Amino acid sequence: MAAEDNKDLIEILENQNSVDVAKYMNFVSAPQAGAIATFSGTTRDTFDGKTVLELIYEAYIPMAIRCIKSVCTSARESWNLHSIAVAHQLGTVPVGETSVFIAVSSVHRADALEACRYLIDEIKATVPIWKKEVYSNGEVWKENTEFLERRSELGKKDVAVEIKEHKKKLCCGTKVRVNHEGGQD
Amino acid sequence: MAAEDNKDLIEILENQNSVDVAKYMNFVSAPQAGAIATFSGTTRDTFDGKTVLELIYEAYIPMAIRCIKSVCTSARESWNLHSIAVAHQLGTVPVGETSVFIAVSSVHRADALEACRYLIDEIKATVPIWKKEVYSNGEVWKENTEFLERRSELGKKDVAVEIKEHKKKLCCGTKVRVNHEGGQD
Repeated sequence: MAAEDNKDLIEILENQNSVDVAKYMNFVSAPQAGAIATFSGTTRDTFDGKTVLELIYEAYIPMAIRCIKSVCTSARESWNLHSIAVAHQLGTVPVGETSVFIAVSSVHRADALEACRYLIDEIKATVPIWKKEVYSNGEVWKENTEFLERRSELGKKDVAVEIKEHKKKLCCGTKVRVNHEGGQD
Repeated sequence: MAAEDNKDLIEILENQNSVDVAKYMNFVSAPQAGAIATFSGTTRDTFDGKTVLELIYEAYIPMAIRCIKSVCTSARESWNLHSIAVAHQLGTVPVGETSVFIAVSSVHRADALEACRYLIDEIKATVPIWKKEVYSNGEVWKENTEFLERRSELGKKDVAVEIKEHKKKLCCGTKVRVNHEGGQD
């Protein structure tokens, strides 16, 4: 499922193909942009000392897209950006494969570099995507640590006001796990 | 010409082919690395309000590689990195094409993202690569503004000491333009 708005492309991928890095870099590339910054998040082979076999991601897609759009809008308010592309894989992502890819272009490099950092940090902290970690000796569904930290912060009134002022908020108040067509349940 | 040292790959490209982004991303990719950050510097169509047709880069290759290696070593001292790849095109780089590409991998994303920013900033500021800007109404050879600023800072004694302490220095004290085999002169 994809959403293209202004110069932003957001794709939630369900087909278990590899993330097409070249496609997103081409999308953000433009004659007027002198800089492209990208970030790839990949499944690594260990976590907290345990051997990881694969990760499995699940999301309610319309809400994930809405949240990612919100993060993109926020980034455009802070930096002078040409284009943004965000892709997130759902389903099984084996070790070494990409689960999330971000590409950002801008006239000057500081904008693309800083916005790329902001985008991945905010997507991790605010977009409701669940992750199942499959280890060699078991598996566990978990929310992203940063997501939990942000929600915990929002529960404290003063901090919530401060965060709102800085336009850093969760897209949704709580994560509600919803079964959906094409989902991983 | 290429230099591969530890887990770093440095290539100065003279063949005027496009920079092979996938090659460098594959080079830094590894099962133990959960993050890859990249930066592409591309020729943009305007500079200071003038229409740019192309950029032409020139370097004394062994010195450029030595300087880029030095920047990579410095990055490894500050961040926990898995692999670094740096490619710089020489010769003509038309509008929209990549002149410099950096890919960095790490276990955790903060290391790759911060090191990527450091690498491009330091390469721009310390590596002696000349740039000819070809406009629709003329052309000019110039050193990178950041390179000149860094050299200017080094001329001030107190600042020079401070910069040395922070391991930010020019690889070479002055740029000496040298004709070489395969160069662009």
